[in-house]
Amino acid sequence: METLQRQVNGFNSKDIMDTVGAIQANPEIAKFKFRARNKWISGGHNRSTIQDFYGGCTEDETRKHPFVFDNSEPPILLGNNEGANPVEFILHGLAGCMTTTMMLHAAANGIAVDHVESFLEGDLDVQGFLGLDDTIRNGYQKIRVNFKIEGDLTEEEKQKLISFAYKSPVFDIVTNKVPVSLQLQD
Amino acid sequence: METLQRQVNGFNSKDIMDTVGAIQANPEIAKFKFRARNKWISGGHNRSTIQDFYGGCTEDETRKHPFVFDNSEPPILLGNNEGANPVEFILHGLAGCMTTTMMLHAAANGIAVDHVESFLEGDLDVQGFLGLDDTIRNGYQKIRVNFKIEGDLTEEEKQKLISFAYKSPVFDIVTNKVPVSLQLQD
Repeated sequence: METLQRQVNGFNSKDIMDTVGAIQANPEIAKFKFRARNKWISGGHNRSTIQDFYGGCTEDETRKHPFVFDNSEPPILLGNNEGANPVEFILHGLAGCMTTTMMLHAAANGIAVDHVESFLEGDLDVQGFLGLDDTIRNGYQKIRVNFKIEGDLTEEEKQKLISFAYKSPVFDIVTNKVPVSLQLQD
Repeated sequence: METLQRQVNGFNSKDIMDTVGAIQANPEIAKFKFRARNKWISGGHNRSTIQDFYGGCTEDETRKHPFVFDNSEPPILLGNNEGANPVEFILHGLAGCMTTTMMLHAAANGIAVDHVESFLEGDLDVQGFLGLDDTIRNGYQKIRVNFKIEGDLTEEEKQKLISFAYKSPVFDIVTNKVPVSLQLQD
Protein backbone atom coordinates (compact mmCIF):
# COMPACT_ATOMS: atom_id res chain seq x y z
CA MET A 1 0.00 0.00 0.00
CA GLU A 2 1.33 3.40 -0.90
CA THR A 3 1.39 6.08 1.81
CA LEU A 4 0.47 9.62 0.89
CA GLN A 5 3.58 11.75 1.56
CA ARG A 6 2.46 15.08 0.19
CA GLN A 7 4.91 17.92 0.73
CA VAL A 8 3.48 21.42 1.03
CA ASN A 9 5.78 24.36 1.80
CA GLY A 10 8.47 21.94 2.96
CA PHE A 11 6.15 20.33 5.49
CA ASN A 12 4.99 16.75 5.12
CA SER A 13 1.19 16.79 5.36
CA LYS A 14 1.15 13.37 7.01
CA ASP A 15 3.62 14.55 9.67
CA ILE A 16 1.36 17.50 10.52
CA MET A 17 -1.70 15.22 10.77
CA ASP A 18 0.22 12.66 12.84
CA THR A 19 1.39 15.36 15.26
CA VAL A 20 -2.10 16.77 15.67
CA GLY A 21 -3.51 13.24 16.15
CA ALA A 22 -0.88 12.38 18.76
CA ILE A 23 -1.61 15.57 20.75
CA GLN A 24 -5.35 14.94 20.60
CA ALA A 25 -4.73 11.43 21.96
CA ASN A 26 -2.43 12.74 24.74
CA PRO A 27 -2.40 16.54 25.32
CA GLU A 28 0.54 16.18 27.73
CA ILE A 29 2.95 15.87 24.79
CA ALA A 30 2.04 19.43 23.73
CA LYS A 31 3.63 20.94 26.85
CA PHE A 32 7.10 22.36 26.20
CA LYS A 33 9.73 24.00 28.39
CA PHE A 34 12.25 26.02 26.34
CA ARG A 35 15.48 27.24 27.92
CA ALA A 36 18.42 29.62 27.51
CA ARG A 37 21.57 30.02 29.59
CA ASN A 38 23.37 33.37 29.45
CA LYS A 39 26.75 34.64 30.68
CA TRP A 40 27.78 38.27 30.95
CA ILE A 41 31.10 38.98 29.21
CA SER A 42 31.70 42.74 29.61
CA GLY A 43 29.68 45.93 29.25
CA GLY A 44 26.76 45.29 26.90
CA HIS A 45 28.25 42.02 25.62
CA ASN A 46 26.88 38.68 26.79
CA ARG A 47 26.43 35.19 25.35
CA SER A 48 23.60 32.65 25.40
CA THR A 49 23.70 28.92 24.81
CA ILE A 50 20.52 27.15 23.76
CA GLN A 51 20.36 23.36 23.48
CA ASP A 52 18.10 21.26 25.67
CA PHE A 53 14.33 21.58 26.07
CA TYR A 54 11.47 19.50 27.40
CA GLY A 55 8.64 18.46 25.07
CA GLY A 56 6.67 15.39 24.05
CA CYS A 57 6.89 14.21 27.71
CA THR A 58 10.68 13.91 27.48
CA GLU A 59 13.97 15.82 27.43
CA ASP A 60 15.02 16.44 23.84
CA GLU A 61 18.39 14.99 22.83
CA THR A 62 18.44 15.72 19.11
CA ARG A 63 20.83 18.69 19.31
CA LYS A 64 24.38 17.44 19.51
CA HIS A 65 25.84 20.94 19.89
CA PRO A 66 24.42 24.06 21.53
CA PHE A 67 23.40 27.12 19.54
CA VAL A 68 25.49 30.08 20.70
CA PHE A 69 24.43 33.72 20.25
CA ASP A 70 26.08 36.95 21.37
CA ASN A 71 24.13 40.03 22.39
CA SER A 72 26.01 43.28 22.04
CA GLU A 73 25.42 46.94 21.20
CA PRO A 74 26.63 49.32 18.50
CA PRO A 75 29.03 52.16 19.47
CA ILE A 76 26.18 54.69 19.83
CA LEU A 77 24.83 52.41 22.57
CA LEU A 78 28.28 51.99 24.14
CA GLY A 79 29.19 48.63 22.57
CA ASN A 80 31.43 47.28 19.82
CA ASN A 81 28.97 45.37 17.60
CA GLU A 82 30.04 41.94 18.86
CA GLY A 83 26.49 40.84 18.05
CA ALA A 84 23.01 42.11 17.26
CA ASN A 85 21.35 43.73 20.25
CA PRO A 86 18.58 42.13 22.33
CA VAL A 87 15.71 44.16 20.85
CA GLU A 88 16.90 43.23 17.34
CA PHE A 89 16.77 39.55 18.34
CA ILE A 90 13.13 40.12 19.27
CA LEU A 91 12.43 41.27 15.69
CA HIS A 92 14.26 38.19 14.37
CA GLY A 93 12.16 35.88 16.56
CA LEU A 94 8.95 37.68 15.64
CA ALA A 95 9.69 37.52 11.89
CA GLY A 96 10.61 33.85 12.04
CA CYS A 97 7.69 32.81 14.20
CA MET A 98 5.10 34.58 12.06
CA THR A 99 6.65 33.07 8.93
CA THR A 100 6.77 29.50 10.30
CA THR A 101 3.24 29.78 11.69
CA MET A 102 1.97 31.08 8.35
CA MET A 103 3.67 28.33 6.35
CA LEU A 104 2.64 25.50 8.69
CA HIS A 105 -1.02 26.53 8.70
CA ALA A 106 -0.83 27.11 4.94
CA ALA A 107 0.47 23.55 4.50
CA ALA A 108 -2.26 22.18 6.76
CA ASN A 109 -4.80 24.01 4.58
CA GLY A 110 -3.23 22.88 1.31
CA ILE A 111 -2.07 26.36 0.28
CA ALA A 112 1.29 26.15 -1.49
CA VAL A 113 3.48 29.27 -1.35
CA ASP A 114 6.58 30.01 -3.46
CA HIS A 115 8.30 32.81 -1.60
CA VAL A 116 7.90 34.81 1.63
CA GLU A 117 9.91 37.78 2.81
CA SER A 118 9.33 40.17 5.66
CA PHE A 119 10.69 43.50 6.82
CA LEU A 120 10.26 44.52 10.45
CA GLU A 121 10.89 47.87 12.08
CA GLY A 122 10.43 48.78 15.74
CA ASP A 123 10.44 52.23 17.36
CA LEU A 124 12.32 52.55 20.63
CA ASP A 125 13.12 55.72 22.57
CA VAL A 126 16.01 55.03 24.97
CA GLN A 127 14.93 57.88 27.27
CA GLY A 128 12.56 55.34 28.86
CA PHE A 129 15.16 52.70 29.57
CA LEU A 130 17.67 55.29 30.83
CA GLY A 131 15.10 56.68 33.27
CA LEU A 132 15.22 60.15 31.68
CA ASP A 133 11.48 60.39 30.95
CA ASP A 134 8.91 58.41 32.93
CA THR A 135 6.24 58.94 30.25
CA ILE A 136 8.24 56.92 27.68
CA ARG A 137 8.07 53.14 27.87
CA ASN A 138 11.29 51.13 28.05
CA GLY A 139 10.56 48.75 25.18
CA TYR A 140 9.22 49.11 21.64
CA GLN A 141 6.48 51.69 21.24
CA LYS A 142 5.36 50.10 17.97
CA ILE A 143 6.49 47.38 15.56
CA ARG A 144 5.61 47.38 11.85
CA VAL A 145 5.73 44.14 9.87
CA ASN A 146 5.62 44.11 6.08
CA PHE A 147 5.11 40.76 4.35
CA LYS A 148 5.81 40.02 0.69
CA ILE A 149 4.19 36.74 -0.39
CA GLU A 150 4.59 35.17 -3.82
CA GLY A 151 2.93 32.17 -5.43
CA ASP A 152 -0.09 31.13 -7.45
CA LEU A 153 -2.41 32.69 -4.88
CA THR A 154 -5.69 34.59 -4.91
CA GLU A 155 -5.99 37.82 -2.90
CA GLU A 156 -8.26 35.90 -0.51
CA GLU A 157 -5.60 33.23 0.01
CA LYS A 158 -2.97 35.89 0.71
CA GLN A 159 -5.23 37.46 3.34
CA LYS A 160 -5.76 34.00 4.82
CA LEU A 161 -1.96 33.60 5.07
CA ILE A 162 -1.73 36.90 6.97
CA SER A 163 -4.49 35.70 9.32
CA PHE A 164 -2.40 32.58 10.02
CA ALA A 165 0.59 34.76 11.00
CA TYR A 166 -1.48 36.25 13.86
CA LYS A 167 -1.51 32.78 15.48
CA SER A 168 2.27 32.96 15.99
CA PRO A 169 3.48 32.28 19.57
CA VAL A 170 5.96 35.19 19.42
CA PHE A 171 3.23 37.49 18.07
CA ASP A 172 1.23 36.56 21.20
CA ILE A 173 4.28 37.06 23.46
CA VAL A 174 4.97 40.54 22.02
CA THR A 175 1.39 41.83 21.69
CA ASN A 176 0.13 40.42 25.00
CA LYS A 177 1.48 40.18 28.53
CA VAL A 178 3.64 37.27 29.64
CA PRO A 179 4.29 36.86 33.38
CA VAL A 180 8.05 36.80 34.02
CA SER A 181 9.38 35.95 37.49
CA LEU A 182 12.91 36.90 38.54
CA GLN A 183 14.82 35.03 41.19
CA LEU A 184 18.25 35.65 42.67
CA GLN A 185 20.22 32.46 43.25
CA ASP A 186 22.20 32.19 46.49
CA MET B 1 44.86 67.70 32.26
CA GLU B 2 44.01 64.13 32.96
CA THR B 3 40.53 62.94 32.04
CA LEU B 4 38.73 60.60 34.38
CA GLN B 5 38.19 57.38 32.40
CA ARG B 6 36.81 55.12 35.08
CA GLN B 7 35.75 51.71 33.85
CA VAL B 8 32.95 49.95 35.73
CA ASN B 9 31.63 46.60 34.47
CA GLY B 10 33.26 47.23 31.08
CA PHE B 11 31.44 50.55 30.67
CA ASN B 12 33.30 53.86 30.69
CA SER B 13 31.58 56.06 33.28
CA LYS B 14 32.35 59.18 31.25
CA ASP B 15 30.75 57.64 28.14
CA ILE B 16 27.56 56.93 30.10
CA MET B 17 27.46 60.49 31.45
CA ASP B 18 28.22 61.97 28.02
CA THR B 19 25.40 59.93 26.45
CA VAL B 20 22.88 60.98 29.10
CA GLY B 21 24.00 64.61 28.76
CA ALA B 22 23.70 64.54 24.98
CA ILE B 23 20.14 63.10 25.17
CA GLN B 24 19.11 65.69 27.76
CA ALA B 25 20.39 68.42 25.41
CA ASN B 26 18.59 66.90 22.40
CA PRO B 27 16.00 64.16 23.12
CA GLU B 28 15.65 63.45 19.37
CA ILE B 29 18.90 61.45 19.44
CA ALA B 30 17.24 58.94 21.80
CA LYS B 31 14.78 57.79 19.13
CA PHE B 32 15.81 54.52 17.47
CA LYS B 33 14.36 52.40 14.69
CA PHE B 34 15.66 48.81 14.78
CA ARG B 35 15.10 46.49 11.81
CA ALA B 36 15.21 42.89 10.66
CA ARG B 37 14.76 41.36 7.20
CA ASN B 38 13.64 37.74 7.00
CA LYS B 39 13.40 35.19 4.16
CA TRP B 40 11.55 31.91 4.33
CA ILE B 41 13.69 28.95 3.24
CA SER B 42 11.49 25.84 3.66
CA GLY B 43 9.12 24.45 6.28
CA GLY B 44 10.00 25.92 9.68
CA HIS B 45 13.38 27.19 8.46
CA ASN B 46 13.92 30.88 7.71
CA ARG B 47 16.77 33.38 7.92
CA SER B 48 17.05 36.96 9.18
CA THR B 49 19.65 39.57 8.39
CA ILE B 50 20.16 42.45 10.80
CA GLN B 51 22.46 45.35 10.00
CA ASP B 52 21.18 48.91 9.62
CA PHE B 53 19.23 50.94 12.16
CA TYR B 54 18.33 54.56 12.74
CA GLY B 55 19.46 56.30 15.93
CA GLY B 56 21.16 59.48 17.10
CA CYS B 57 19.32 61.32 14.28
CA THR B 58 21.17 59.32 11.61
CA GLU B 59 21.42 55.96 9.85
CA ASP B 60 24.05 53.83 11.55
CA GLU B 61 26.94 52.71 9.35
CA THR B 62 29.21 51.01 11.89
CA ARG B 63 28.31 47.45 10.92
CA LYS B 64 30.31 46.42 7.89
CA HIS B 65 28.61 43.01 7.63
CA PRO B 66 25.08 41.93 8.53
CA PHE B 67 24.35 39.60 11.42
CA VAL B 68 22.64 36.48 10.05
CA PHE B 69 20.47 34.17 12.16
CA ASP B 70 18.47 31.08 11.22
CA ASN B 71 15.20 30.13 12.86
CA SER B 72 14.34 26.46 12.70
CA GLU B 73 12.60 23.77 14.73
CA PRO B 74 13.65 20.45 16.28
CA PRO B 75 12.30 17.18 14.78
CA ILE B 76 9.44 16.96 17.32
CA LEU B 77 8.24 20.31 15.88
CA LEU B 78 8.73 19.12 12.29
CA GLY B 79 12.14 20.70 11.65
CA ASN B 80 15.78 19.64 11.40
CA ASN B 81 17.49 21.86 14.01
CA GLU B 82 19.00 24.24 11.44
CA GLY B 83 18.79 26.89 14.17
CA ALA B 84 17.25 27.69 17.53
CA ASN B 85 13.51 28.27 17.31
CA PRO B 86 11.83 31.68 17.50
CA VAL B 87 10.58 31.35 21.08
CA GLU B 88 14.10 30.34 22.19
CA PHE B 89 15.46 33.52 20.57
CA ILE B 90 13.01 35.45 22.76
CA LEU B 91 14.62 33.92 25.86
CA HIS B 92 18.07 34.85 24.48
CA GLY B 93 16.98 38.46 23.91
CA LEU B 94 15.34 38.65 27.33
CA ALA B 95 18.40 37.24 29.13
CA GLY B 96 20.77 39.58 27.29
CA CYS B 97 18.66 42.68 27.72
CA MET B 98 18.14 42.18 31.44
CA THR B 99 21.87 41.54 31.88
CA THR B 100 22.97 44.59 29.88
CA THR B 101 20.41 46.81 31.61
CA MET B 102 21.56 45.57 35.01
CA MET B 103 25.24 46.11 34.25
CA LEU B 104 24.78 49.55 32.68
CA HIS B 105 22.73 50.87 35.59
CA ALA B 106 25.17 49.21 38.01
CA ALA B 107 28.04 51.05 36.32
CA ALA B 108 26.12 54.34 36.43
CA ASN B 109 25.62 53.76 40.17
CA GLY B 110 29.25 52.75 40.77
CA ILE B 111 28.43 49.12 41.63
CA ALA B 112 31.17 46.83 40.27
CA VAL B 113 30.14 43.24 39.54
CA ASP B 114 32.46 40.28 38.86
CA HIS B 115 30.21 37.70 37.29
CA VAL B 116 26.58 37.34 36.12
CA GLU B 117 24.85 34.26 34.79
CA SER B 118 21.20 33.60 34.12
CA PHE B 119 19.01 30.61 33.37
CA LEU B 120 15.65 31.14 31.69
CA GLU B 121 12.82 28.69 31.17
CA GLY B 122 9.50 29.32 29.45
CA ASP B 123 6.35 27.16 29.44
CA LEU B 124 4.58 26.80 26.11
CA ASP B 125 1.69 24.48 25.24
CA VAL B 126 1.53 24.05 21.46
CA GLN B 127 -2.18 23.18 21.60
CA GLY B 128 -2.81 26.94 21.55
CA PHE B 129 -0.76 27.67 18.47
CA LEU B 130 -2.15 24.62 16.63
CA GLY B 131 -5.72 25.75 17.34
CA LEU B 132 -6.54 22.56 19.28
CA ASP B 133 -7.64 24.30 22.49
CA ASP B 134 -8.95 27.86 22.51
CA THR B 135 -8.41 28.21 26.26
CA ILE B 136 -4.62 27.85 25.85
CA ARG B 137 -2.64 30.91 24.75
CA ASN B 138 -0.32 30.67 21.74
CA GLY B 139 2.82 32.05 23.37
CA TYR B 140 4.60 31.50 26.68
CA GLN B 141 2.31 30.98 29.66
CA LYS B 142 5.10 31.87 32.07
CA ILE B 143 8.85 32.60 31.98
CA ARG B 144 11.15 32.02 34.96
CA VAL B 145 14.49 33.85 35.18
CA ASN B 146 17.16 32.83 37.65
CA PHE B 147 20.14 35.17 38.15
CA LYS B 148 23.45 34.26 39.74
CA ILE B 149 25.46 37.38 40.61
CA GLU B 150 28.97 37.35 42.04
CA GLY B 151 31.18 40.14 43.35
CA ASP B 152 32.03 42.06 46.50
CA LEU B 153 28.37 42.95 46.99
CA THR B 154 25.99 43.36 49.92
CA GLU B 155 22.59 41.65 49.82
CA GLU B 156 21.07 45.11 49.37
CA GLU B 157 23.29 45.80 46.34
CA LYS B 158 22.31 42.46 44.80
CA GLN B 159 18.62 43.32 45.22
CA LYS B 160 19.34 46.71 43.64
CA LEU B 161 20.89 44.93 40.64
CA ILE B 162 17.73 42.82 40.26
CA SER B 163 15.64 46.01 40.40
CA PHE B 164 17.75 47.41 37.53
CA ALA B 165 17.00 44.31 35.41
CA TYR B 166 13.27 45.20 35.52
CA LYS B 167 14.08 48.35 33.48
CA SER B 168 15.12 46.19 30.50
CA PRO B 169 13.44 47.06 27.17
CA VAL B 170 12.87 43.37 26.35
CA PHE B 171 11.42 42.78 29.83
CA ASP B 172 8.92 45.55 29.01
CA ILE B 173 8.23 44.09 25.54
CA VAL B 174 7.53 40.61 26.97
CA THR B 175 5.61 41.58 30.12
CA ASN B 176 3.54 44.35 28.53
CA LYS B 177 1.68 44.79 25.26
CA VAL B 178 3.43 46.11 22.15
CA PRO B 179 1.25 47.14 19.20
CA VAL B 180 2.31 45.23 16.07
CA SER B 181 0.84 46.14 12.69
CA LEU B 182 0.94 43.69 9.77
CA GLN B 183 0.87 44.81 6.17
CA LEU B 184 0.83 42.82 2.97
CA GLN B 185 3.04 44.30 0.27
CA ASP B 186 1.63 44.31 -3.28
